[in-house]
Amino acid sequence: MKAIAGPRLAVAVSSAGGIGFLGPGAKPEDLGPALQEATSLISSSPSLSKSAKEQGTLPIGIGFQTWAGDLSVASKILGEVELKPRAVWLFAPRHGQKELDEWTKKIREVSSGTEIWIQVASVKDAVDAARSAERPDVLVVQGADAGGHSRTQGAGIVALLPEVWDAVNGDGELVPIIAAGGIVEERGAAAVLVLGADGVAMGTRFLASEEARINGGYQRHVVEAGDGGQSTVRTQLYNYLRGEMNWPKGWDARGLVNESWRDHERGVEFEKNRELYAEAAKRGESGWGDEGRMATYAGTGVGLVKEVKSAGEIVREVRSGIGKVLGAASENIQ
Amino acid sequence: MKAIAGPRLAVAVSSAGGIGFLGPGAKPEDLGPALQEATSLISSSPSLSKSAKEQGTLPIGIGFQTWAGDLSVASKILGEVELKPRAVWLFAPRHGQKELDEWTKKIREVSSGTEIWIQVASVKDAVDAARSAERPDVLVVQGADAGGHSRTQGAGIVALLPEVWDAVNGDGELVPIIAAGGIVEERGAAAVLVLGADGVAMGTRFLASEEARINGGYQRHVVEAGDGGQSTVRTQLYNYLRGEMNWPKGWDARGLVNESWRDHERGVEFEKNRELYAEAAKRGESGWGDEGRMATYAGTGVGLVKEVKSAGEIVREVRSGIGKVLGAASENIQ
Repeated sequence: MKAIAGPRLAVAVSSAGGIGFLGPGAKPEDLGPALQEATSLISSSPSLSKSAKEQGTLPIGIGFQTWAGDLSVASKILGEVELKPRAVWLFAPRHGQKELDEWTKKIREVSSGTEIWIQVASVKDAVDAARSAERPDVLVVQGADAGGHSRTQGAGIVALLPEVWDAVNGDGELVPIIAAGGIVEERGAAAVLVLGADGVAMGTRFLASEEARINGGYQRHVVEAGDGGQSTVRTQLYNYLRGEMNWPKGWDARGLVNESWRDHERGVEFEKNRELYAEAAKRGESGWGDEGRMATYAGTGVGLVKEVKSAGEIVREVRSGIGKVLGAASENIQ
Repeated sequence: MKAIAGPRLAVAVSSAGGIGFLGPGAKPEDLGPALQEATSLISSSPSLSKSAKEQGTLPIGIGFQTWAGDLSVASKILGEVELKPRAVWLFAPRHGQKELDEWTKKIREVSSGTEIWIQVASVKDAVDAARSAERPDVLVVQGADAGGHSRTQGAGIVALLPEVWDAVNGDGELVPIIAAGGIVEERGAAAVLVLGADGVAMGTRFLASEEARINGGYQRHVVEAGDGGQSTVRTQLYNYLRGEMNWPKGWDARGLVNESWRDHERGVEFEKNRELYAEAAKRGESGWGDEGRMATYAGTGVGLVKEVKSAGEIVREVRSGIGKVLGAASENIQ
């Protein structure tokens, strides 16, 4: 979600009973002002202020892509803030678990009370994290349906989550597991709880939230797109078109198909495609959409996103829907 | 599953309360002897014979890949048998819904009482089938985690199933839906019921059944492989190595990674790879395995398959496990 998940979205999610996360900003130093804005929004909410006081932490989390992050900047900012965030979410290391351990250790030093969440997309990465000396407080297990970045090779949550659960928690629970990837509403959320998850992470659904810091054309494409397995594609192309040439090996991103992808498939050379991309970037909202060209990261659940809602409404609908869905399924099999 | 799903496996699944299917044989004419053998196995089971008499159909189904099938041979054989199969499962047309309609119409003419099941892997294909003049009796919705053949572009069942359900049944139920792809045990089975499925189709799990007609080396690799999203790959390579050059556009197959794939990735030319494949094919069981070369189709759920069991045991475990899993999930959220 990166800059799309700003302070307003994170605080709105936490207000409704979820845990909202700030995405990584355009540069590491953006974290300071973002945390400041979130803190100010929280202090103007009586219930969140109360929760912050009781827990001793800020009721939101912060996400980092460690390969592109700056640990010294991050730890300096986290060290200086009075109220530490409830959680830090680490993702996409260039140097595997070693890099995640380094971040975890440093953040635990400077940000006491902050849970460490680590996102993985394979059984091996899950086991490496769960058995490391710096074991995370939470594992986020990301299935191949996720929008944006993940491992190029992956499995959907239906197969990945039970295998991770058995490998990590089969001999006694080591780490709680949050499921991600393809979950946009109560049916998916209830299904992953059945698979063994302790909670649910949603990204794509919040692209179509009122609080998302998102271009209107991007948001409209998310609402309009259907048949998510056909209308999205996993590729490095959009990374490269955006000038992100440096992602670690073995990662790519899922985004909505548009003219950039179609031209790539038609054999248009990259340099030409990049020129067209740069022109589209100047067009405002019309740079996005089925006939647009801009990177429009979204998961395969995009076809279930039909309208823009407030983040609070989204969280409340999913939370209240889960029980109904589970109840109905239990009745059906009797 | 093709020839791996022979009469013994199909009848064992049906004996345990499921519906077993005969896969397409090596050539269309193989259906006759397979049906004969299945009929004989059924007649020696008192409970299945009773069910056949009550239902007026043979308590198993038959699968066809329509692009490679021969409708005139199939309809001749189905027309001649006294007891018609409970269901026919159609899959992988070269000419879209038109081809499926043609098969459906003909089979309904010659094989009265036989349900038509159509397997789809996108929302569009599901809607085309459900709204066609020859609407199927059942839709099988196949997520991208499935082993063997499916659409190259796809979504996992967590996102695909709810979107298909809304599109097909949102305005009143048109067609029951069976979920496939990545489901190998009770957690996956319960999860897809929560997503809205009326039933569950499993393939990969039965590769490791006692009744599967499968090379021992193939079966051993299925049992040994883990981390299914990393140890399997979607590709046309194994089709081509097997000499199946003719699959419709936009389809490929998921199989376990072995030396054939690694050589392909290392840049070994196809002709050389095919020679090595032909040599491996002569090696018996050792042609399979992580160090082998043979096509080893399996889904991402392969990491959850840990031992060979009887098909009956597999069916009973999944059926009895679903209620427990749903019950536990309902309790956890209270």
